[in-house]
Amino acid sequence: MISNVVLIGSGKLATQLGLCLAKTGYNIRQVYSRTIENAQELAERLNAYATDSFNEIQEDADIYIIAVADSVLHTTIESLPKVKGIVVHTAGAMSVDLLIRFDQYGIFYPFQTFSKERDVDFKNIPVLIEACNEDVDLKLKSFASKISKTVKTCDSNQRQQIHLAAVFACNFTNHMYAIAEDILQENDVSFDVIKPIIMETAHKTDYLSPVKAQTGPAVRGDKNVIKKHLEMLDNDDELSVLYSKITSRIAKLQSGKIKIQD
Amino acid sequence: MISNVVLIGSGKLATQLGLCLAKTGYNIRQVYSRTIENAQELAERLNAYATDSFNEIQEDADIYIIAVADSVLHTTIESLPKVKGIVVHTAGAMSVDLLIRFDQYGIFYPFQTFSKERDVDFKNIPVLIEACNEDVDLKLKSFASKISKTVKTCDSNQRQQIHLAAVFACNFTNHMYAIAEDILQENDVSFDVIKPIIMETAHKTDYLSPVKAQTGPAVRGDKNVIKKHLEMLDNDDELSVLYSKITSRIAKLQSGKIKIQD
Repeated sequence: MISNVVLIGSGKLATQLGLCLAKTGYNIRQVYSRTIENAQELAERLNAYATDSFNEIQEDADIYIIAVADSVLHTTIESLPKVKGIVVHTAGAMSVDLLIRFDQYGIFYPFQTFSKERDVDFKNIPVLIEACNEDVDLKLKSFASKISKTVKTCDSNQRQQIHLAAVFACNFTNHMYAIAEDILQENDVSFDVIKPIIMETAHKTDYLSPVKAQTGPAVRGDKNVIKKHLEMLDNDDELSVLYSKITSRIAKLQSGKIKIQD
Repeated sequence: MISNVVLIGSGKLATQLGLCLAKTGYNIRQVYSRTIENAQELAERLNAYATDSFNEIQEDADIYIIAVADSVLHTTIESLPKVKGIVVHTAGAMSVDLLIRFDQYGIFYPFQTFSKERDVDFKNIPVLIEACNEDVDLKLKSFASKISKTVKTCDSNQRQQIHLAAVFACNFTNHMYAIAEDILQENDVSFDVIKPIIMETAHKTDYLSPVKAQTGPAVRGDKNVIKKHLEMLDNDDELSVLYSKITSRIAKLQSGKIKIQD
């Protein structure tokens, strides 16, 4: 049974996860951050100790949750004392093997995009689990089930593929929003006007496969509109290439009604 | 005052708009479709007459709403009898000038993505108006305000830019979902697992500019993850080029932390 938690990290995920675990009744013992002020700020909210030194990390907690940027994950893992409890990282793109120096280890990957500005409801966030053995798998599943209603075991390859899928469905989608915002701003139109269509497009995934839900000039094979859009993007080579490539992929996917030159 | 409506078209938009107008109390006189069965099906739901002949179109309605595919808009407009009432089209990408042969004309563009499978609440759909003169502008605004709480006048250029923005924020976003679905399917993972992150990404636009909301390896400058993703996409040239181009644009937009080769 997991009851005592040490959090390694104080960023968006560590903050949201820490708050949720504390609320669920877990005892957050300690928060580590490279920057003591950040550790202190979060530790205070969690009624925990703060530290910026790996030497000071308490060695008798049940679980150590590493929630740091992928770029410092390796060095963070190397610097951790060889604790007895379960050590997990939360990085979707990273292998579980990074943690092989510990006796008990695994992955605890809450599959969501986090902001400091917005509280999320962990109940609706799928948690993807991977473990070094069956015992740890059971413990992690039981732990994750306390905060989320969707807990899945998957191996490192599957999780990395899921992470890649999310780069398209979340990160790249958000960039599409950013492009739209830019076009609207340049034409003195409020971004508000496009919010309903953004929400509806997302909602559609709930009952319709994206391939079937596809709308727009590319799927209609509407060459005139596509040509006009490319003319409108004429002053931005990069963006017009992007427009052509995505249009071409949509058209191909929907049984190749048209072929765009790119 | 507009009270009698003739609908030209029986597709997704004509259906949703017709149902909403009928519910709001407008008298839908007639539904035209090239295919009489489609005209009849919708006309029945709206307690209207059906026709597949332009010659039979009633000439004394207050408004004629053309909701057909962009590709047949020109020929539809040419085939319409020269009616006295206001003639509007609903095509975001098309100019108002197409309707110049009528005495009273304009644009009535409900800015949303429509499906036959899903009823939408017109109250939350911005309606973009353009009119041939002030009198028609007032009439169209009053008409649109009965069904939507957001009615805006904008010129053809602005509307076409808004439509272009929507291709990115809606059509291309949906294609990002389709790519994600494909990656998940190939790895035996249910699309359900990614739905919460899709919804959250859309919701974020409500309180955060997309540029500020951007997350993921591109904005973190996480070269290792990007490199790994490109390796995973190695068997799909088209997709890896797309990945590189979008990643590169995100990185540049966020103050150029990295430069991806493409």
